[in-house]
Amino acid sequence: MTQSREANPLHAIFNARSVAFVGASNKPTTMGTIQMLNTLRGNFKGPVIPVHPRLDRVLGEKAYPTLRALPDPVDLAVLVVPTDAVLPVVEDAAARGIRHLVITSAGFREGGEEGRQREERLRELSRRHGIRFVGPNCIGVLNTASGLNTTFFPYLHAPGPLGLASQSGTYVTQVLDLLSRWGIGLSKAISVGNSVSIDLADCLDFFADDPDTRAVALYIEGIPDGRKFLSAARRCTARKPVVALYVGGTEGGARSGRSHTGAMGGPDEIYNGLFAQAGIQRVSTVADLYTFGWALATQAVPRGNRMVILTHSGGPATSMADAVYRHGMTLSRFSSDLEARIREMLPATASASNPIDLTFSLDIKLLQEKLPPLLLGQDTVDGLLMHGLQGSTFFSDISRIAGDLFSLPLDQMSEFARLAVEPLCRMPEQFQKPIVMSCFYDRRDNVVRTLQDSLIPVFDTPERAVAAMGALVRYGEYRRRLAQPGNSDARAFV
Amino acid sequence: MTQSREANPLHAIFNARSVAFVGASNKPTTMGTIQMLNTLRGNFKGPVIPVHPRLDRVLGEKAYPTLRALPDPVDLAVLVVPTDAVLPVVEDAAARGIRHLVITSAGFREGGEEGRQREERLRELSRRHGIRFVGPNCIGVLNTASGLNTTFFPYLHAPGPLGLASQSGTYVTQVLDLLSRWGIGLSKAISVGNSVSIDLADCLDFFADDPDTRAVALYIEGIPDGRKFLSAARRCTARKPVVALYVGGTEGGARSGRSHTGAMGGPDEIYNGLFAQAGIQRVSTVADLYTFGWALATQAVPRGNRMVILTHSGGPATSMADAVYRHGMTLSRFSSDLEARIREMLPATASASNPIDLTFSLDIKLLQEKLPPLLLGQDTVDGLLMHGLQGSTFFSDISRIAGDLFSLPLDQMSEFARLAVEPLCRMPEQFQKPIVMSCFYDRRDNVVRTLQDSLIPVFDTPERAVAAMGALVRYGEYRRRLAQPGNSDARAFV
Repeated sequence: MTQSREANPLHAIFNARSVAFVGASNKPTTMGTIQMLNTLRGNFKGPVIPVHPRLDRVLGEKAYPTLRALPDPVDLAVLVVPTDAVLPVVEDAAARGIRHLVITSAGFREGGEEGRQREERLRELSRRHGIRFVGPNCIGVLNTASGLNTTFFPYLHAPGPLGLASQSGTYVTQVLDLLSRWGIGLSKAISVGNSVSIDLADCLDFFADDPDTRAVALYIEGIPDGRKFLSAARRCTARKPVVALYVGGTEGGARSGRSHTGAMGGPDEIYNGLFAQAGIQRVSTVADLYTFGWALATQAVPRGNRMVILTHSGGPATSMADAVYRHGMTLSRFSSDLEARIREMLPATASASNPIDLTFSLDIKLLQEKLPPLLLGQDTVDGLLMHGLQGSTFFSDISRIAGDLFSLPLDQMSEFARLAVEPLCRMPEQFQKPIVMSCFYDRRDNVVRTLQDSLIPVFDTPERAVAAMGALVRYGEYRRRLAQPGNSDARAFV
Repeated sequence: MTQSREANPLHAIFNARSVAFVGASNKPTTMGTIQMLNTLRGNFKGPVIPVHPRLDRVLGEKAYPTLRALPDPVDLAVLVVPTDAVLPVVEDAAARGIRHLVITSAGFREGGEEGRQREERLRELSRRHGIRFVGPNCIGVLNTASGLNTTFFPYLHAPGPLGLASQSGTYVTQVLDLLSRWGIGLSKAISVGNSVSIDLADCLDFFADDPDTRAVALYIEGIPDGRKFLSAARRCTARKPVVALYVGGTEGGARSGRSHTGAMGGPDEIYNGLFAQAGIQRVSTVADLYTFGWALATQAVPRGNRMVILTHSGGPATSMADAVYRHGMTLSRFSSDLEARIREMLPATASASNPIDLTFSLDIKLLQEKLPPLLLGQDTVDGLLMHGLQGSTFFSDISRIAGDLFSLPLDQMSEFARLAVEPLCRMPEQFQKPIVMSCFYDRRDNVVRTLQDSLIPVFDTPERAVAAMGALVRYGEYRRRLAQPGNSDARAFV
């Protein structure tokens, strides 16, 4: 069932060393122009070649009137042309020996009977010429390592180990700004559109082998070929975690999906069964899709469900403690010996049992350097949840209010806070245990930014951090079931 | 059961025209200093008077050695003193005729037997002198209209119609930066701490009458006096919506709450019953607490559960459509007449049924000016959900990437986008129907900012917008049950 590494066309597409854009121009308001721009200016190393019937140069690059006129074949051609022009351009590609395409253009299956027939002709034509393509009705692909970005949103933040495959272009493009604000970096992303040639199963098969991707997030409106999907998903989930947002299980979702990508959704029960068999965690919101995916991509798999909560805020401590139980985890019980060791480190108003709430002692060394290794070193602790580590923002807000009343050495304080958090940044690796955090400040705060850039998830609210830790715990349970002798088929995700 | 407007001490506290801070100094790193600073520089109009045993001036203001030494009584005194000093300072306050306090200091019930006895003495002492106070073990109060802010976080964004009362100081202080990023403005906030003299019921009783507050959000670890709470809550929910995050219902939440504020939580079932009787919507995350609260504070109560979704992104359209059904709402069915009218406005690739997905036509006039009034004007539409309205951010990101390749008239494009969204900003008021949105850009985008500043909720993800709309629909159902003749007691919130 499984394709060999070479056979999966996504390898050729993501490793493309030259790209042509059919439909780019010099008008900054057209989609094709922006798509070409994002690859041209996205650190892509190879040639980026515009194809335009009339223009000599597009975005400063020499243009050719058709794909047939290219001096050499390109590894990948991106089609951003009117619906009626798609088939002729595919013929051009075939004639020039181009075997991989991204077809952005819409107007196929999702648009009724005429579109369905057009899609059928596209399928036949590409098969005849041995052409594999992403789309149609898609935004294409993004490879943050190579700078290849056929979408029309620029990728402006650091790459990371999360891979995305989506039946919605929005969830791999428009969402990039949100992901950057949440500190979530992508390896590769694929908008599959109508999936005529390359579908979600091909994406899973590809991600299973992709060394840049440590977890995969899927957005699904409907899966036409359950058997192919299951086979590819099992191969992938045996190696790395996969989360999926499936939205076709309600009347509203099914109806909307049909007119969006022509997807045929099915009842939740069917899909729940499919995901369980595939070892995929289903999530219910796009926020969970990305945040669970990010925790799974960055943190060690926990050995159990016993959590420690460490913070200096009583409310978030209690919210996290409550959420830990609601997400199927427990609070690690401290031995009296451990509790005594902790107590002698703490101020009088603080709680030495789990959750550990330092109250506003502002003893950064205690919170960030002394307690975490003590806790992570315990056999009875499987993961650490923290809330509220922060640096520059509070100081600068106070400074702003204070004006001339007093002056804080802002740079010095911020740098002190950043240095103080560095040992913590190394602890997930050192202890091979997950750390997930929340903070009400975002990455404008230098401590939040430092943590996030060290691949420690810092989310906006306590429950979101706990929910993401829950996804890690469930994946750990799944891995342990997989590893039991004679249990290679008991993959059900519960 | 109900206190008269004058009897509720929160009226006096929030209307204080003079405030003394006992425990502020000139050290910018102490809590009391920051607390005084936030009122002093928070546009508070009256005198802000420091009390300090040795200093002549604190933050530039003339200081007095004790409360007894004040030339006149103040309307409110804030105590940020060591635990042992609290009772003597309360004696001082009584002696100077000061009747209202905020006691920030911790070390009472939450800290074991000795603290419990100290709290008992504080209760007796204050009763004897007719003193009412917020706390102890709290962060105090915030009145965004008067500039009174006894917390140690500055309030730096616009006031709004959401009131907060919380058993955690963090959820009315540390969270302010998050709320500002989410476009959520507060009217008044109270951190009740150990609630010795003023509790959550007093807050609800106060908010029922507060003209600046249109919805109330509560954070609850435990309610000791269910009868008093129920009475005040019923009075409040008959006038304005109340949402509550209760975290004491699990082993973890109950244990953590005890060491935080000494609160005694109880099983979820008991609290669910209490909330249902009180007409309060229970939520399960702090994100829901604020976002539901914000939708309820800003939007008209919908007459039913029939939604329209309008967007130019197929993925979010489908996510929203799916979530609408998961949150107990339906998609409004368009008559063939209406569908025909919509279809003639749309590009060929767009869907004219509900959800309406314009695809990337980028026809702003259609999306923001023509379709919304047509839809909101239908009797069969109870609310409008939109995703993806945006302005400056995308343009400036593209500009940044393009560099010298082309130049976009950024200011002009942004201003055009802002002007184009203004008619929409008036529609919730015009049609008396709710609009809730999501956008993957935040308020750095001028269109998102304009919408949020016009009190249209714009949240970060599609499901969050739908969930908040669901809270509005449930409140509408509750109001209609309340209004049924002979049904004044059938308040159960289902």
